[in-house]
Amino acid sequence: MNRGNIPQQATEPQDVRLWEEDTPATNPEEIAHYFDRLWPLLRSITGDGVRHTLDILSELVPMERHEIPSGTNVFDWTVPQEWVVRDAFILAPDGKRILDIAKNNLHLLNYSIPFRGEVSRAELDQNLHSLPELPQAIPYVTSYYEPRWGFCLSQDQRDGLPEGTYQVVIDTDHIDGSLTYGEAVLPGTETGEVLISTNVCHPSLANNELSGPLVSAFLYRRLASMKERRLTYRFVFIPETIGCIVFLSTRGQHLRDNLVAGYSVTCIGDDAPFTYKRSRAGNSLADRAAIYVLSQEDGIGSSILDFFPDGGSDERQYCSPGFDLPVGSLMRSMYLKYPEYHNSLDNREFISFQAMSRSIDVYYRVMVALDINLTYLNLMPWGEPQLGKRGLYTTLGAVDRSRSNSALRWLLNFADGDHDLLSIAERSGQSMGNLHASAQACLKAGL
Amino acid sequence: MNRGNIPQQATEPQDVRLWEEDTPATNPEEIAHYFDRLWPLLRSITGDGVRHTLDILSELVPMERHEIPSGTNVFDWTVPQEWVVRDAFILAPDGKRILDIAKNNLHLLNYSIPFRGEVSRAELDQNLHSLPELPQAIPYVTSYYEPRWGFCLSQDQRDGLPEGTYQVVIDTDHIDGSLTYGEAVLPGTETGEVLISTNVCHPSLANNELSGPLVSAFLYRRLASMKERRLTYRFVFIPETIGCIVFLSTRGQHLRDNLVAGYSVTCIGDDAPFTYKRSRAGNSLADRAAIYVLSQEDGIGSSILDFFPDGGSDERQYCSPGFDLPVGSLMRSMYLKYPEYHNSLDNREFISFQAMSRSIDVYYRVMVALDINLTYLNLMPWGEPQLGKRGLYTTLGAVDRSRSNSALRWLLNFADGDHDLLSIAERSGQSMGNLHASAQACLKAGL
Amino acid sequence: MNRGNIPQQATEPQDVRLWEEDTPATNPEEIAHYFDRLWPLLRSITGDGVRHTLDILSELVPMERHEIPSGTNVFDWTVPQEWVVRDAFILAPDGKRILDIAKNNLHLLNYSIPFRGEVSRAELDQNLHSLPELPQAIPYVTSYYEPRWGFCLSQDQRDGLPEGTYQVVIDTDHIDGSLTYGEAVLPGTETGEVLISTNVCHPSLANNELSGPLVSAFLYRRLASMKERRLTYRFVFIPETIGCIVFLSTRGQHLRDNLVAGYSVTCIGDDAPFTYKRSRAGNSLADRAAIYVLSQEDGIGSSILDFFPDGGSDERQYCSPGFDLPVGSLMRSMYLKYPEYHNSLDNREFISFQAMSRSIDVYYRVMVALDINLTYLNLMPWGEPQLGKRGLYTTLGAVDRSRSNSALRWLLNFADGDHDLLSIAERSGQSMGNLHASAQACLKAGL
Repeated sequence: MNRGNIPQQATEPQDVRLWEEDTPATNPEEIAHYFDRLWPLLRSITGDGVRHTLDILSELVPMERHEIPSGTNVFDWTVPQEWVVRDAFILAPDGKRILDIAKNNLHLLNYSIPFRGEVSRAELDQNLHSLPELPQAIPYVTSYYEPRWGFCLSQDQRDGLPEGTYQVVIDTDHIDGSLTYGEAVLPGTETGEVLISTNVCHPSLANNELSGPLVSAFLYRRLASMKERRLTYRFVFIPETIGCIVFLSTRGQHLRDNLVAGYSVTCIGDDAPFTYKRSRAGNSLADRAAIYVLSQEDGIGSSILDFFPDGGSDERQYCSPGFDLPVGSLMRSMYLKYPEYHNSLDNREFISFQAMSRSIDVYYRVMVALDINLTYLNLMPWGEPQLGKRGLYTTLGAVDRSRSNSALRWLLNFADGDHDLLSIAERSGQSMGNLHASAQACLKAGL
Repeated sequence: MNRGNIPQQATEPQDVRLWEEDTPATNPEEIAHYFDRLWPLLRSITGDGVRHTLDILSELVPMERHEIPSGTNVFDWTVPQEWVVRDAFILAPDGKRILDIAKNNLHLLNYSIPFRGEVSRAELDQNLHSLPELPQAIPYVTSYYEPRWGFCLSQDQRDGLPEGTYQVVIDTDHIDGSLTYGEAVLPGTETGEVLISTNVCHPSLANNELSGPLVSAFLYRRLASMKERRLTYRFVFIPETIGCIVFLSTRGQHLRDNLVAGYSVTCIGDDAPFTYKRSRAGNSLADRAAIYVLSQEDGIGSSILDFFPDGGSDERQYCSPGFDLPVGSLMRSMYLKYPEYHNSLDNREFISFQAMSRSIDVYYRVMVALDINLTYLNLMPWGEPQLGKRGLYTTLGAVDRSRSNSALRWLLNFADGDHDLLSIAERSGQSMGNLHASAQACLKAGL
Repeated sequence: MNRGNIPQQATEPQDVRLWEEDTPATNPEEIAHYFDRLWPLLRSITGDGVRHTLDILSELVPMERHEIPSGTNVFDWTVPQEWVVRDAFILAPDGKRILDIAKNNLHLLNYSIPFRGEVSRAELDQNLHSLPELPQAIPYVTSYYEPRWGFCLSQDQRDGLPEGTYQVVIDTDHIDGSLTYGEAVLPGTETGEVLISTNVCHPSLANNELSGPLVSAFLYRRLASMKERRLTYRFVFIPETIGCIVFLSTRGQHLRDNLVAGYSVTCIGDDAPFTYKRSRAGNSLADRAAIYVLSQEDGIGSSILDFFPDGGSDERQYCSPGFDLPVGSLMRSMYLKYPEYHNSLDNREFISFQAMSRSIDVYYRVMVALDINLTYLNLMPWGEPQLGKRGLYTTLGAVDRSRSNSALRWLLNFADGDHDLLSIAERSGQSMGNLHASAQACLKAGL
């Protein structure tokens, strides 16, 4: 080393933390405000619940609305009829109104057929759903592809129902209407795309699923406020499974041609450690960026799961073998793995708006990591360039412990047209922010 | 997830354990019966010992007999003369008959030249072989490629031999005859082949080597009784090394063209944990199937060894660089690694017919895993197919914890023409039986 | 196995340790002799210090001298002016001569501009360099690319300097001269080259850097005395960075065409465990040979580091993306990682001539490993060749525990034209010496 050892003169620059520069963190109270407005809506995979949800989200995300007529064939599926719900409740033998959707919209079996009539306690029981092992929770149950009527309630309430005659009122309809979803695109200077996909079909459930559209919508707002964007960002707010199939039937080929990375945003509302589920390819750019950002975050645990198709959300569709898109999922408490999943305990108490703001931060950093992830080419690759004459290096030979200079040397050595910034960060331990800043300095210096 | 949480309604199907369906386990007493008939025969790499052995095994395996004339050149080798043994014993100074092959055929140096004459104690000693560190064991020694006469005996017996004159009688001959081996083929619907190769040249030794032909012969019988076979199964019963070289000179090219997987069956008779020695390629289908099956077996330890050429059986020939065939070896107590190896302690007490029956089970499961290991192609690869309308999925949305449905989803996602069933099993943790059953269900459903 | 179990007859051959055969170890006292002559020279990146150093080293290495004129453009750099030093010291207020380069040539800021004049204590202080955390050490500081004058001294001495007037004498010059380096080539029978590169620009520092040229020079002498060499060995004694850039501007293309492996020899003088820093490619032949040899050495710890560009010596230039040569560095106490680095504590007491002799041994073994690392082709690849008839195998079948026979079987199995000797050694655990001896035996036997 041609450099003397004068640590006291070495400056220790702060990490360049790009992500904080442009856009402020999301105020938890603002998230709570939107949560409280979205919570009471009775959503299903079709119908006005979805539309009203999109109406509210449109205040944050100026989205295009798509309506796909019932009966449309998409791949192996057919768009189902639209579900209309006017009222649903039961009059108990004592005349009291119970299981009223006005109180909790989980009470009605989702997509239930209409029914009106008197039934005995025993007949009623055949159409009830509850959770013996969670006696106070109302389960969330659906019957989309087989006509059934039914109610969901807590085991405790079920056990307390007396013998007698019950008046059932389910004033619903299945009509030829449409399936609705929203789509918004933030253009960048390049055609490469990042996809943010989330679901708007769950009724009053908090972590799974209101956290998904809320995080996505506020993430959109932060990205929209960035000074410049290299990549194009596509946001979709879709009913799960069938909505995703419909979306893929329209945009699948486009995504195969342009998608750089994508995420299925779900189960991201509580303050549990992060869980990242890889895309099917296993080491796609989506995976690398998310895992890199998690590795840079302080004070959060995280676990990384390989892709699995037997459980999960729309990443199963994006990662089906015909598409095999680079779509993963960054979550907190994951579906199937927490007791409150798909029942009334997944509510406002279960989640944390503070944590959701942090989740937005993390997703935003993943977006920034993707956006600055260029592959540079060192124009002076034969030996090291002389940094001193370009003002990129202290002229007094000393042990250089500055991390930005270290980042600069890593960048110059690996800017060979084969390594993107992310792979240099992975290999060097240098932050992407510092590498990006070094790259900007080199561009100015003509390197 | 579009599904409610009703665990009490989830059915938990049993694993589909294909292998038990078709064919019954082998009765240990039947193995013992054949063992006792094969044990006394004086085998060598040529001669009547091999022929009588094949005669008995032919009761289980209808095999074709090959006779290769002495002096035939095969690759770098020449088929040796046939060894004829009529009698061999010694009259001790006191006139007693000792080291008589009628009592233990290990006493005679294998392939010994004839000799008849009087020798002193000291002269005799130069032609004796014993094991000081195992003073009660008679070693198994051969001299195929250098003419010698000699006897093997325990160190204890050797130490007790008095001074005096010994009458040596070795009534043997080396004649122009042939090298003998047996071959049997169980045809399947495809030309892809599995090779089972085992040795019939060892005299009275149990784990190494009677266990090899016994396990192979009963494995043949199980495979022969299967309702259907996709693959073709080739069994060879050969003298070690030179027999394998001869076999390869005939079938080597055919095996290069057709062999899917093969196993050198040896040292498979005791109840020690399993040892699998990989093929030279290291991750061939032979290796993956054996290792997968071992991972699914309960209550057996197993260790996996990389291929090594400096020790072992005929896998060394199959894996020579000119052939480099996918041939491994699934064993119990491995050659060189147990004290009883190649001496009279490797006998009926050392082995276990119960364990040998289990070994046949395990080899049989490896065969089944190979046989069902197809690469499927999902005909509806764009998103998930709609399972509900095909009766493959419960129509009441609930948490599906059934493992067969899980297997179905793994299968559909990875049935992309690149993944065989075994690789899906390795990745998913799903059993091959469940994946196979799912594949059959999909085929019926037109997927 | 066709072989009997007679361990008492098995011979256990000694490992063939090729490396000790040809050339004797280096006498530590001889290293010390050269060290003491080189130590007092005032070296810099140019000038007579370098030339005198090369004069002395030429007694061991008959090298070609290159002189590159000041002002020559090389890649992104320009050869600086030559530094001439006639005298440098200070007269303290009491008239005493302090910081005299005659006593320690670290006192003068390396490449200092001339200065002569009276300064106050405060003015002087602005041109002083010391290490508060190592109060007795004189730091080594340079200012090659910005004109400055200055002195280096211990913090203790600095703290003791009284107020008053100081007479500064720096009698130096920067003249149009040249940059000097030495180069020597030991030809082999093939054009493939090994590069040994070391620095001659540091003043009185022991581990970094006199150990580098000393180990290199004695390594040259050992290689020169070998009976035969397959590879060509190129040694360069260059000023760090700019000297390497200059050398690469001349030989870079040649090295890209011919270099098999190379090492930047630095920090190799003390008795700390070895540290190997990989080349940029990460698993080049340079890396594999060095790591293999370290794995075979007894009683030395070693750690293996991935390549990093932000610190180090000329491997940074060789591994710049335009060249990306297979050059690593085998060290003891590595730059930046020991407190004595780049200050006066890195002196004769810090290093060990005994350890340096051992370092020469290890580097020499790396050279031998490279030299014998051929890729052989088994001419009898179909099954194992018959070793017995070629005298390569004992004719009495017995458990062969001899390691040379084991090496022979590994060699024959993997001599497939794809595996070099090093890769067989890595896979088999056999020593390269045994494998090489086996290869020689096979060549004689026509295999």
